[in-house]
Amino acid sequence: MKHIFLFHCLIIMGLSGLAQQRALVFQTDFGLKDGAVAEMKGVVYSLSPDVPMFDLTHEIPPYNIWEAAYRLQQTAPYWPPGTVFVSVVDPGVGSARKSVVLKTRTGHYFVTPDNGTLTLVAKQMGIAEVREINEAVNRRKNSGASYTFHGRDVYAYTAGKLAAGKITFGQVGPRLPDTVVTIPFQRPEYARDTLRGNIPVLDVQYGNVWTNIDQQTFARLQAEPGDVLKVVISSGGEQVYSGTMPFVNTFAAVPEGKELLYLNSLLNVSFAVNMGDFSSRHHVKSGPAWTVVICRQ
Amino acid sequence: MKHIFLFHCLIIMGLSGLAQQRALVFQTDFGLKDGAVAEMKGVVYSLSPDVPMFDLTHEIPPYNIWEAAYRLQQTAPYWPPGTVFVSVVDPGVGSARKSVVLKTRTGHYFVTPDNGTLTLVAKQMGIAEVREINEAVNRRKNSGASYTFHGRDVYAYTAGKLAAGKITFGQVGPRLPDTVVTIPFQRPEYARDTLRGNIPVLDVQYGNVWTNIDQQTFARLQAEPGDVLKVVISSGGEQVYSGTMPFVNTFAAVPEGKELLYLNSLLNVSFAVNMGDFSSRHHVKSGPAWTVVICRQ
Amino acid sequence: MKHIFLFHCLIIMGLSGLAQQRALVFQTDFGLKDGAVAEMKGVVYSLSPDVPMFDLTHEIPPYNIWEAAYRLQQTAPYWPPGTVFVSVVDPGVGSARKSVVLKTRTGHYFVTPDNGTLTLVAKQMGIAEVREINEAVNRRKNSGASYTFHGRDVYAYTAGKLAAGKITFGQVGPRLPDTVVTIPFQRPEYARDTLRGNIPVLDVQYGNVWTNIDQQTFARLQAEPGDVLKVVISSGGEQVYSGTMPFVNTFAAVPEGKELLYLNSLLNVSFAVNMGDFSSRHHVKSGPAWTVVICRQ
Repeated sequence: MKHIFLFHCLIIMGLSGLAQQRALVFQTDFGLKDGAVAEMKGVVYSLSPDVPMFDLTHEIPPYNIWEAAYRLQQTAPYWPPGTVFVSVVDPGVGSARKSVVLKTRTGHYFVTPDNGTLTLVAKQMGIAEVREINEAVNRRKNSGASYTFHGRDVYAYTAGKLAAGKITFGQVGPRLPDTVVTIPFQRPEYARDTLRGNIPVLDVQYGNVWTNIDQQTFARLQAEPGDVLKVVISSGGEQVYSGTMPFVNTFAAVPEGKELLYLNSLLNVSFAVNMGDFSSRHHVKSGPAWTVVICRQ
Repeated sequence: MKHIFLFHCLIIMGLSGLAQQRALVFQTDFGLKDGAVAEMKGVVYSLSPDVPMFDLTHEIPPYNIWEAAYRLQQTAPYWPPGTVFVSVVDPGVGSARKSVVLKTRTGHYFVTPDNGTLTLVAKQMGIAEVREINEAVNRRKNSGASYTFHGRDVYAYTAGKLAAGKITFGQVGPRLPDTVVTIPFQRPEYARDTLRGNIPVLDVQYGNVWTNIDQQTFARLQAEPGDVLKVVISSGGEQVYSGTMPFVNTFAAVPEGKELLYLNSLLNVSFAVNMGDFSSRHHVKSGPAWTVVICRQ
Repeated sequence: MKHIFLFHCLIIMGLSGLAQQRALVFQTDFGLKDGAVAEMKGVVYSLSPDVPMFDLTHEIPPYNIWEAAYRLQQTAPYWPPGTVFVSVVDPGVGSARKSVVLKTRTGHYFVTPDNGTLTLVAKQMGIAEVREINEAVNRRKNSGASYTFHGRDVYAYTAGKLAAGKITFGQVGPRLPDTVVTIPFQRPEYARDTLRGNIPVLDVQYGNVWTNIDQQTFARLQAEPGDVLKVVISSGGEQVYSGTMPFVNTFAAVPEGKELLYLNSLLNVSFAVNMGDFSSRHHVKSGPAWTVVICRQ
């Protein structure tokens, strides 16, 4: 009877094993028009048909490392610890940038070229360990002659092995110092009755402008819903927008076509036009060079 | 031995349980360029890694409730009863519209703001019950300070719990009257040798024009394949197109570049140009304001 | 005890059965803006909730059979034998083209109208058997009145049954001769110190130009990294581009904005501008009519 129960345990462990495959979430600047994303997924499916695969986005503007960094930070906190993210925005493919896996203190994994992509998740989720991918073992077989699709042959392959439990994090490759390549930008700050911050990204579908000024920093201005605030937006130090708008909890709190300041779904200060497009109207874009200043009238 | 078989049964039930997770199908106007869709999927995956997730579309034109309503009606009949659809096209986020789950007589579930999105599925599939989402229990923990991403914190979260079997339909929240908010439009009708209907949507990829005139209503005109029909298309009562074209069974039945009337994949009357784009050629669009009149020559 | 172990075996076989569902990979020219893709997936999910479904692309330019052929060839080798591809780019829907399933010598399946879509995979992976879909049994029930959505009612339905193991390949329908409809194009060749080939496709996201000249054919030119080569590109016999560029292993080997010749991720000769767009700069497109000639300076 003991044998039988042992056998049962094996079956049940097998089942649990199935359920415990880690999710793999893809992000690239490849777009959805060709076969590149499907090649990566085929490589992972060939390693293990049981890895649950999802897409963050494949529409990162080509070579835009900053936006790749932002999308990871925006999305990763909503996935459970153990989730493996693979991000391939890699203008320096073939150059000296390292191929790494970051494990954060929250237990998430990020497989990517270390070119700035990890700037924001490293800050937000904390660095537990960084390892360099050992391509001698963690590279798709017979892919040595291909110089340009590391996304498939190195990043998806390594991420797939990690998500499937075919390698441990330690088997990724040698440990590196606890640091990643970062892109400089204006961090959120409050001083002399004034808030300063960066525009990391636009809410592209609607044209809303998102800042990196979080709820806690914003609270220091002691603004109440309904209060009208002064906003100045600059790019590379040159003023692009200057105006006033109320701080509100819902778009519907202002008439259609009017501007408003609100906390977005990440609880960061943002600017919008109710039923309109703030970004287009005022030619506001995003990136490390964009800054915003907010104060009371 | 009985214990062993009981144990076996539990294992098998466990397996069946895995298989019986309901599919969750997402529709939004968020686009695929940012992290919003992946945040919603991460919330569902965190609730249960076994819910099969699919996308209807995330390219509903921003705020276009009518098109959201149409896409649900177009797609839902091809999914099995029990499938959970979550549709987030929500221009009134933060306003008084209710957050609801509709169970249709066909056994499908629709999780959405009740803002007109349910107009067509309620009509086509029938209302079994409508329940208002009780945000006191069916809202992602610690999301109270976020005013604007109900798609993630309320709709995806509730849909995920329902699809995973973590709540019953009854546990969604209090039952509402058996009715939903609807958008008015010209229903298909036949009178005095003339068909009238609406253009609910375009077949955007090809520029074909789809009406809501179904096969049964069309049959009253007693047109045979090859018969030439007169078609007038108007917007807000103003004539946009007037012409004649044959009723055919296949695009190839007319020369390239010629217009034709056919029954589309939903068996509704539609207009096309063989290997061309009817919509662009004649500036025909879609929505509740667009009407079509068809008669024999 | 024998019964118990037999029973165990059944359970384990059941589990293996789950794992052995074949992946189903979709390709269409439907775009992602309407419900067509989700209708196809709903049909498959209704047949069996356990078939793993993936997308190659739904952004094939409308009616572009050549590009459909190319994307299959590009992607299929990275998926395991047994994978079922369904490709629906079907300008001749309703005409005399046959609906077929190709089984390649590599063990992959392709479900598609036989209109040229199979040109490249048949060549690359070899024809094991071709069968015509018997619509009397392999067509969605009650879909007879619909003349135009074979993608859902015939192709996705048959592919779903095949991937789920509900039919064997033999049950698809009667065997046809071992041949498929093919589109003519310039095959890669080397003669009199000159390489000739076709531009099957662009790397659309980056504007890189991909040829069908493979590594082995290219090797006959005996070019080393750093060698400068002369390149002429023509369309329909008319010269579109003429210039020189170095053969390099990485984009970073040339300054930003400079042209380069490299082996792409398929190990085919390709042209690019480092951090730029070769295709836009020189108005180079792709298809059967495009040819390229390469020689030493």
